[in-house]
Amino acid sequence: MKAEIIAVGSELLTPDRLDTNSLFLTEELNKIGIEVVRKTVVGDDHDLLSEAFRDALNRVPLVISSGGLGPTEDDLTRETVADLLGRKLRRNDDILRYIEGRFRALGRDMPQVNVRQAMVPEGAEILENPRGTAPGLWLEDGDRAIALLPGPPRELKPLFREQVLPRLERRASGVRMFSRELRVTGLGESHVEQRIVGIYKRYAEVNTTILAAPGETQIHLRMWTGDAEHAKKTLDEIVSGFAIALTDRIFSQNGSSLEEVIAEELTLHNATISAAESCTGGLLAQRLTSIAGSSSYFLGGLVCYSNELKTAWVGVPAELIQAKGAVSPEVAIALADGIRRRVGSTFGVGITGIAGPGGGSEEKPVGTVHIALSHAGGVKERGVRFPGDRENIRWQASQLALDMVRVHFLYNGKQLPTRA
Amino acid sequence: MKAEIIAVGSELLTPDRLDTNSLFLTEELNKIGIEVVRKTVVGDDHDLLSEAFRDALNRVPLVISSGGLGPTEDDLTRETVADLLGRKLRRNDDILRYIEGRFRALGRDMPQVNVRQAMVPEGAEILENPRGTAPGLWLEDGDRAIALLPGPPRELKPLFREQVLPRLERRASGVRMFSRELRVTGLGESHVEQRIVGIYKRYAEVNTTILAAPGETQIHLRMWTGDAEHAKKTLDEIVSGFAIALTDRIFSQNGSSLEEVIAEELTLHNATISAAESCTGGLLAQRLTSIAGSSSYFLGGLVCYSNELKTAWVGVPAELIQAKGAVSPEVAIALADGIRRRVGSTFGVGITGIAGPGGGSEEKPVGTVHIALSHAGGVKERGVRFPGDRENIRWQASQLALDMVRVHFLYNGKQLPTRA
Repeated sequence: MKAEIIAVGSELLTPDRLDTNSLFLTEELNKIGIEVVRKTVVGDDHDLLSEAFRDALNRVPLVISSGGLGPTEDDLTRETVADLLGRKLRRNDDILRYIEGRFRALGRDMPQVNVRQAMVPEGAEILENPRGTAPGLWLEDGDRAIALLPGPPRELKPLFREQVLPRLERRASGVRMFSRELRVTGLGESHVEQRIVGIYKRYAEVNTTILAAPGETQIHLRMWTGDAEHAKKTLDEIVSGFAIALTDRIFSQNGSSLEEVIAEELTLHNATISAAESCTGGLLAQRLTSIAGSSSYFLGGLVCYSNELKTAWVGVPAELIQAKGAVSPEVAIALADGIRRRVGSTFGVGITGIAGPGGGSEEKPVGTVHIALSHAGGVKERGVRFPGDRENIRWQASQLALDMVRVHFLYNGKQLPTRA
Repeated sequence: MKAEIIAVGSELLTPDRLDTNSLFLTEELNKIGIEVVRKTVVGDDHDLLSEAFRDALNRVPLVISSGGLGPTEDDLTRETVADLLGRKLRRNDDILRYIEGRFRALGRDMPQVNVRQAMVPEGAEILENPRGTAPGLWLEDGDRAIALLPGPPRELKPLFREQVLPRLERRASGVRMFSRELRVTGLGESHVEQRIVGIYKRYAEVNTTILAAPGETQIHLRMWTGDAEHAKKTLDEIVSGFAIALTDRIFSQNGSSLEEVIAEELTLHNATISAAESCTGGLLAQRLTSIAGSSSYFLGGLVCYSNELKTAWVGVPAELIQAKGAVSPEVAIALADGIRRRVGSTFGVGITGIAGPGGGSEEKPVGTVHIALSHAGGVKERGVRFPGDRENIRWQASQLALDMVRVHFLYNGKQLPTRA
């Protein structure tokens, strides 16, 4: 079966808002053998919206839209689709009571505008949305089906999985998409390609995509088949080949981020970590603590921009900063050692560098970063010059710091005690 | 003039990658009176790609694509468009030398695969790309024009502005888009709508969109006209009305983020800030230091997850934590006061809360956050319960903390000394 996705919202035609939903929907649809043949973005305009739905329904038997179900005047999806199919809109009092209840639970009165969200086209099935005010709608018109979903991803996703997917599975064929995602750090797109092209070229039925992202390279494998065992065997074989070609550079085979990988290792080994950051300004601490339960391994972090605080907070000797400069291997090591000792954690990370755009010199240009990882057995330091802008440089620095922890566990993990 | 945008890349049909370029391109095009009538996403497949370009060229005189110009086998845009227009691909030795030079500057050899990026369709103009290896291409075919741009936003954006825009401006009409963006915090979408609907409804020629984002609500105003003065007057009038209706809740009228607004105020008043964070785990420090030049006002930050570090690093009395709990107004205030005094900054921010998903109780459910802002004249504390998941709660907490600083300047700024 083929489907089209329509993302509704004038905001999606500005530089301020991204349509993330169509990507989620595409993968969910692919998994059950439904191919997405087109994705369209249209604004909140009755005529343009109507044309987009009409054209899509002329081409494919399934149209899924996101957005335009909100309470405000510019939310037109309900009205437009009802008009297009020649259905009347009726107020549904169950929905109205539900919406009023949601506002009451937050101690607020329902604004009058929200009544719009209780309007339902004749013959539509209601897709309940416990995470938001606007319900989704499912409409059938002859052999065509339309799902109107709310725009916010955290409402759309569970609603799709719980209520749309079961309806679609009844209609779909046995062919499914099987996929793998490998994440690599420390090797650029071209170099990854060169190392693995000889391998993936041998598998014509597998689609391989190599993507560059800040601080990492991603490899996506996708394969469409009705034979799950064959898919697993083929993808396993390719991944094994890649793992040899890319040595220790693959940090994730399941989509995990570096901070998730580190979180698992730290938890497994009952180890703790702390960070003293200069140029990353708290980004490393923020990434480490973005994981639920991080309080069990992350003890504390310091953001010491000034030389005075490097000395006062972490004990970096003022003479060392004077002699070597704040951005130097020696200061990175002193930050890592200092924070580890002061906090009493298994690991200490020190980061110092020049994120720019100011502060660079010929000797130490913008992008120069020194990162040290300290533990009871010693310290490792790496000096790098990252390309890109301030945000990119900070991100890559945090990425390398996390990778240094990962690599430490990779080569020393077997000798470390693990949680009983 | 009408245009279509084609985003190329199988990765854009997965949940892992967003097409941000089409949004940037749409706004740039709108500004010079070119309307984007369709946005399409297609995968790296010769036939599908060819069909997308063919259909678009049959509908509109201008097609802009992003992506598919990389060095790898799955990058097919060059070949496909050359085939479609019946042009041969030729190797361009200037481009080849440039690519080799880029790799050499990084101390690396050019991988053989990158030769693909030096292939150019006959008659194409080369759009130089000093930020990446792949140049863009400009093709004309009768009265139709095609711009093939590289996928990475940091390459595409300057390339578009410097080389595509001048070519387009010659062709475009005098009608332009005029827009305003207001950012509001502390008021939800429905409540913003209710306060301003009476105002914007009076201006039929202005398109108003209200958008919910984590920790903020955005209002976009867009107007198409050839009369710049009329546009300015109309938009100014609407914005003045909104400012009254929304009291002090508008934090930005020019797209600035809260951290940018704070950065300006701190710099203007020669003031400095420091932060002691628990549940936000460095997010506030990271946001404050994401601004270039932040070292002039951000002195230092502490991430103290454990009670011990709250006491050791910021001097929060252990008995206070014992008596009131780590998540309490009193501890937030002690964190804010403590960090301000220890660092000697104008402002100190303390944040403590439960980001979840664990750690909540009936009395203090997940989402409970206390934030304090301390300065020499006193301290202000706010206790809130934020909805959403861990990431959302942390973001909203950092948003409120920044907003408390903004509001402080709003009501006290005039009495504060400013930089000479």
